[in-house]
Amino acid sequence: MGVVLCGAGRFDGSEITEATLTLLHLDKGKAEAHCFAPDAPQFEVCEHFEGAGLPGQQRNMLVESARITRGDIQPLASADQANLDALILPGGSGVARNLCDFAGKGSKGKVHPALAQLIRSMHAAHKPIGAICIAPVVLALALGAHRPRLTLGPSTEGPALDAAMAGAEMEPCEVDAIIVDDRNNLVSTPAYILGEGPAEVNTGIQKLVKEILKRVQR
Amino acid sequence: MGVVLCGAGRFDGSEITEATLTLLHLDKGKAEAHCFAPDAPQFEVCEHFEGAGLPGQQRNMLVESARITRGDIQPLASADQANLDALILPGGSGVARNLCDFAGKGSKGKVHPALAQLIRSMHAAHKPIGAICIAPVVLALALGAHRPRLTLGPSTEGPALDAAMAGAEMEPCEVDAIIVDDRNNLVSTPAYILGEGPAEVNTGIQKLVKEILKRVQR
Repeated sequence: MGVVLCGAGRFDGSEITEATLTLLHLDKGKAEAHCFAPDAPQFEVCEHFEGAGLPGQQRNMLVESARITRGDIQPLASADQANLDALILPGGSGVARNLCDFAGKGSKGKVHPALAQLIRSMHAAHKPIGAICIAPVVLALALGAHRPRLTLGPSTEGPALDAAMAGAEMEPCEVDAIIVDDRNNLVSTPAYILGEGPAEVNTGIQKLVKEILKRVQR
Repeated sequence: MGVVLCGAGRFDGSEITEATLTLLHLDKGKAEAHCFAPDAPQFEVCEHFEGAGLPGQQRNMLVESARITRGDIQPLASADQANLDALILPGGSGVARNLCDFAGKGSKGKVHPALAQLIRSMHAAHKPIGAICIAPVVLALALGAHRPRLTLGPSTEGPALDAAMAGAEMEPCEVDAIIVDDRNNLVSTPAYILGEGPAEVNTGIQKLVKEILKRVQR
């Protein structure tokens, strides 16, 4: 089971609670998590009160993600579809700037090349992929040609409009629920796009991980 | 409910999984978490593969802890016993160097002054205090004169020997269990001193939070 991170903190990396709860539910389900992050600088470093950028600072996505995974993480370039039975992308607005450039370019954005290749090869092998919070935009950009069915919470505003322009069919979804694209083997949940706290977010992430593990075992 | 953090990462701050699961179970229990961290530099910045210190770097405990709490955190100096019904200290080896100097001085160590005052005033008011992983050493140093009954997992080796020299009665405890000191109103669990992954650690932390909330409601 691959989990892709891009730092430790929602504004400039992966959302810590979403990443931690993903790993918790994988462990509860007896799945072995293999975590990956790009061995490259974050797009920016942000303070986490308001999210302002801190010019002149630099942090590495792999090095910062290791704080969440207790050091158990590898460079994204070493991730191989053949060794993974599924893939999960936790969210955080940093995902829309580190793992793709959706935040700046919307439906014209591109996915980090190694991640785009990994996602497309997982999809071609009919292996399940889960995406949490804003991370479905990465799937919209990488798999738009396959008309992926995804959620970003509200379906007719904000990033959902750009994801639809990239080719995705956007579905509305509550914080405690998931959207399943059976044809493309994708699962998504809004998490902190809608969630008010960790208990709400946990319910959707637990359902997403259970659905991914069910699909792996088919 | 007060939660005291000191950074985002086990080697130089708070253990991220322990802190996140503490906040999850407080939210599940409908308790309102008030997070605090010292507004001061970490003792050091460490990489999180092996834990080596990175000379020349500096990070602030409050600023880094805000990554875990999504910005919802206040300076430790503003924590007031009168406004808190209980206190929980998540672990991480950074706690033994940021919130006290136990890592360097053992039983002769001192607790961060604002935290020592907060702990002693909570204890004097008979309010419950929980400590996870290595954090019971903070209670051993602050409350040693009251012979606190605590766990650090194994009771006859490593930090437990120093905590006992500071006045604590150290009890052995499995990763999925808690030690309750009814007289001093303290609860502790070994978490990542013994845990192999988040599911194991979650079991003990869930029990600790439930026991603290039960004591608040008495």
